[in-house]
Order: sequence, then C-alpha cells, then structure tokens
Amino acid sequence: MAVQALIFDVFGTLVDWRGSIARQLAPVFTAKGIGTDPAAFADAWRARYDPAMDPVREGLEAYRPLDDLHLENLRHTLLQFGLSDRFETAELDEMNRVWERLDPWEDVVPALTRLKRDYLIAPCSNGSIAMMARLATHGALPWDCVLGADIARSYKPDPEVYRAAVNALRLDAGEVVMVASHNGDLAAAAACGLKTAFVPRPGEHGPGQTSDLRAEGAWTWVAEDLVQLCDLLDGPAL
Amino acid sequence: MAVQALIFDVFGTLVDWRGSIARQLAPVFTAKGIGTDPAAFADAWRARYDPAMDPVREGLEAYRPLDDLHLENLRHTLLQFGLSDRFETAELDEMNRVWERLDPWEDVVPALTRLKRDYLIAPCSNGSIAMMARLATHGALPWDCVLGADIARSYKPDPEVYRAAVNALRLDAGEVVMVASHNGDLAAAAACGLKTAFVPRPGEHGPGQTSDLRAEGAWTWVAEDLVQLCDLLDGPAL
Repeated sequence: MAVQALIFDVFGTLVDWRGSIARQLAPVFTAKGIGTDPAAFADAWRARYDPAMDPVREGLEAYRPLDDLHLENLRHTLLQFGLSDRFETAELDEMNRVWERLDPWEDVVPALTRLKRDYLIAPCSNGSIAMMARLATHGALPWDCVLGADIARSYKPDPEVYRAAVNALRLDAGEVVMVASHNGDLAAAAACGLKTAFVPRPGEHGPGQTSDLRAEGAWTWVAEDLVQLCDLLDGPAL
Repeated sequence: MAVQALIFDVFGTLVDWRGSIARQLAPVFTAKGIGTDPAAFADAWRARYDPAMDPVREGLEAYRPLDDLHLENLRHTLLQFGLSDRFETAELDEMNRVWERLDPWEDVVPALTRLKRDYLIAPCSNGSIAMMARLATHGALPWDCVLGADIARSYKPDPEVYRAAVNALRLDAGEVVMVASHNGDLAAAAACGLKTAFVPRPGEHGPGQTSDLRAEGAWTWVAEDLVQLCDLLDGPAL
C-alpha cells in the first residue's frame, strides 16, 4: 500500500527538549542566584513525564492535556530541588511554556519541507494541539494538521492514539508511516498496522544516553536522519 | 483582551466551492455526454449540506465526518438529476473529492500569510481534518493546526464546536476571532464569547446571491476582504 502520510513523534524525534529547556532555564536560574544545573533539572522534570500519563493511559483518570501535567510535574521538580519558594505562580506558568519553544534538530525543517511536497505530514505527539501549534511557530515546522493525544484524548502508546490519527486522515493504517526515535512508539504503531520509520537521536538524553541508540525492531525504514529517510522514501517501492 | 488567534469558516469564506465544483464537474459531465449545468448541480449538492448535519447537531445521530455526508448527498443529487446510473462507486468516491480541491479566493493566501506572523491561524469548519489538510495542500493555506467539527464531534453552529476550538488553543474565548462570511456562524461564535470578523463573499452562491451580502450583527470587525481585515487588526486596539 503506497504511503500517503507521515506522522511524527515530536519530543526527542524532532525537537531537542533537553538542550532547549536547559538553555532557557539557565538565565532564569542565574537571575535568581539558583545554582542548580539546568540540564539536570530538565532531566528530572522530564523523568516525571511518563509516570504522569499512566493514570490516563490506564483509564483511571480523565484525559488532561500534557501542558497541565507538565505544570504539575514542574511543581514537584522544584520541590525535589528545594526551589518551591523561589517562583510565583505566574513565573511557573511562563516557565512551563518552555515546552512551546523547543528547537528542532537541524535535519527536521529541510526534511519536513521536502516530505510535504509528496505526503501529508502531521505530529502524532503526546503534546496538545496548542503546544504543537506553538512549537510549529517557534521552529517553522510546516505541518498540514495536528494529530496526537488531544484528538484521541489519550496518550501514546495507547493504540487509540495511532488509530485516531489514521482515522482523522481518512487513510488505511498501511498508508501511514509513524516516524520516531523511540522503539516503543514504533512497536505500538506497528501493532496498529502502521508503517514505521526509525531515526536515532543519540543526543536526546545528553551524553550519557543508553536507550534507543539503534533500531530494535523490524521497522519498515531505518535511517540515519530525516533527510536520509526522504531519500529512502524516494527509492524503489517496498 | 488581546487577540491571540483567528479561526476561519472555510466553505464560502475562504474557498469558492460553487465555482470550483462547477469547473471540476464540467469535463466529467462532458465526457459522459451529460447536459446538466455543473453550477446548478453544485448548488443542488450543497443545498443538502445543512439538512444532512441537522440530526448530528440535534444529537439524534452519532457524529460522522462531513466527507461521508457529502457522499450520501451526492447520491441523492444524482438521483434528483436522473443521473444515478451514470457513475460507478469508484467514480462517486473520486467525484466526492472535489471538496478537497476547492480554490481559495484571491485575498486568502496573502492575508493568511500575513496573519500567521502575529497570530495562530486555524480553520474552524464543518469539514473534517482530512478534508481541511488536503484543501490546505491544494490551496497553499498555511495553517498552524486544524480545528472544527472533527475535534468537537459536532457541527457548527453547535456551541461545542467554537468552545472545542478555543479549548484546543488553550486560550480564553475573548482572545480568539471567528472569521466568516456568514452572519449565522458569527452569531453562534459571539454567543460563546469569541470576537468576530465579517467579510462579505457576494459571489459564493453565484450571481443571484441574496443572503449574507452584508454584516447583520454588531461584529467586532467588518472588512471588505481579508487583507483589509489584516489592516484593521494592525490598527488601534479596540
């Protein structure tokens, strides 16, 4: 079945959340005389991401957009670092918006621009529509539409998220490619019948990264980066 | 409250559905020796649009994407013109896709491109995400995301559609402008607290148009076209 659309994981696969958050928090911490390493803070904040989504995935809590979970996680992370009394509520809201200003890896915009000529392209992220739209403004990501958690009202890897994306595009699952730098995301998409493409992002978690350094499944395509994925898609049909 | 986003009606306000459908059906009818006026056929097809959505708006039927309603309406319209036996199922599916290839009015792309620099912009249409994404590809509409019927699972003027759009953007209603060439659409948006902007499209229904020729409510802005609306938004704050 010919590919009609590519849908993308965003955090890690397309944008450098760790580096971007560290760069944005550094001057905030400095201005307040806080000595915490901003990259370590970013890691600790992000570490609360998956556990926070679990009750929604398991149906124990109603869906809430990721922006709200990030804000709660921020409060817990500040507590963990002994910084709870250093920020006003309005400052927390502003700090939480770093997730709307994450920088794309350098191959992303050229590759998306090229893919958009032949395919529909959309994020399929756990981020909200609002977050994805503002990230696209920040990074000039030329999406055709925004899919993902908000339209499914659940979080990946719940199969409903991949199915909702395919249905919203009015395509068959085999006409859609899930693109991610995380093997678990691709395994869940493949189980729903989507095609899969892996690109490694060995810098996502900083210099000590040990996970997702290489493809760990029989993904439809494995590329060094998104520009090479464009070349593979331009090649002979599978 | 400062404007953060503009959301747009699409059929009529941004794209010339009547002219585009007539232009696309003309060669199809000619090839089959069908003498029906394609513009009259477009009018008849579109006349079934609102009645088909009513059971969903009234909660009597589950939400289905507009693509499906258009296809049913096409079958009825062919019956009405005595043309039911002239098209195979695959031809009907292809004919139904004229709704993904509607041409924008000439002010639309320049105005959206300009608005996108300062605001989030999104369609808030009764069309599906798939239809809006493909229309954007066809007409080079530079959306930040796609809102509207699919994310609300209902049809305008159900207030839920405007509320779902505002919520998806994580804004207050007063930070969002509904832009339309239909007074009824704006009345429903205003009742939900959105700001409103009217642009007339006196050619939407062809030379005999009698409805929506001018603003019929106290809309926040009334402009001659979308480029003039950009100028008004750049002017002194209200």
